[in-house]
Amino acid sequence: MVKSIFWSYIAGFLDADGSIYVQLKRNSTYKYDFQISPSVVFYQKDNGVKGLPEIYEKIDLGHLRYRNDKMIEIVISDRKSIRFLLSKITKFLILKKKQAELMLLILNKMEEIKTKQDFISVAELIDEFRNLNYSRKRTVDSQVVKHHLKEI
Amino acid sequence: MVKSIFWSYIAGFLDADGSIYVQLKRNSTYKYDFQISPSVVFYQKDNGVKGLPEIYEKIDLGHLRYRNDKMIEIVISDRKSIRFLLSKITKFLILKKKQAELMLLILNKMEEIKTKQDFISVAELIDEFRNLNYSRKRTVDSQVVKHHLKEI
Repeated sequence: MVKSIFWSYIAGFLDADGSIYVQLKRNSTYKYDFQISPSVVFYQKDNGVKGLPEIYEKIDLGHLRYRNDKMIEIVISDRKSIRFLLSKITKFLILKKKQAELMLLILNKMEEIKTKQDFISVAELIDEFRNLNYSRKRTVDSQVVKHHLKEI
Repeated sequence: MVKSIFWSYIAGFLDADGSIYVQLKRNSTYKYDFQISPSVVFYQKDNGVKGLPEIYEKIDLGHLRYRNDKMIEIVISDRKSIRFLLSKITKFLILKKKQAELMLLILNKMEEIKTKQDFISVAELIDEFRNLNYSRKRTVDSQVVKHHLKEI
């Protein structure tokens, strides 16, 4: 009960000032030449008031990042921590519930990748964040992956 | 229990992207020539995704404001609504708990104002938001009020 209250608070915080997304990055050290990079991030302007670090201490996941543009972030990128966090907060999310569900689906599918086609299918799921997050332009999407994997 | 979960979510949302403050405004239609104007505001960038309006429908307090700079706000400024909201969320706030407590104190003191000195005391309490919110420069503070009330 008390725990639910806390995770519901965190859900509100993430809905207001957080982000759930997966990036595809070119990285030839990975089997399919692309890295799948999932993140859950909490943001806050670094205005001298100890805000986000206090939340960070309480959730105890990921790491704190002080950006050059006066923003602080809690960045959670390891799959286990993301799974744990989303298992706690997804049911309380109002604005980013779909992103959380898509993230969990992708994390599951990632573990089942056995073929190029499996990898492409995951890349296609990642494309769906584009519609949900209304976010930055993606330079690497499933089309890029598909094109590349046809050639190798 | 379910209600607590909701208000805890709202506390997280407000801690991440909201503000609790009281302004002093010159207004000669008021008895002491200044208006005490309390606000609780939720902010969000208007990125085309229906975000804050959805929260607004759920909390059902205040009004929605679409700003020219592509921000949406839920603005709650009537005292009764502020009292109601803060009675629900103060215990769940982590970052803005002091602001909530100061707001409730000021709302109580406002109702007991009988003399100029009472009014000045409230203005002094309002000054304390300056330290808590690390916010915009205040042009009207208790010094301005004090100076003015000595003259009338």
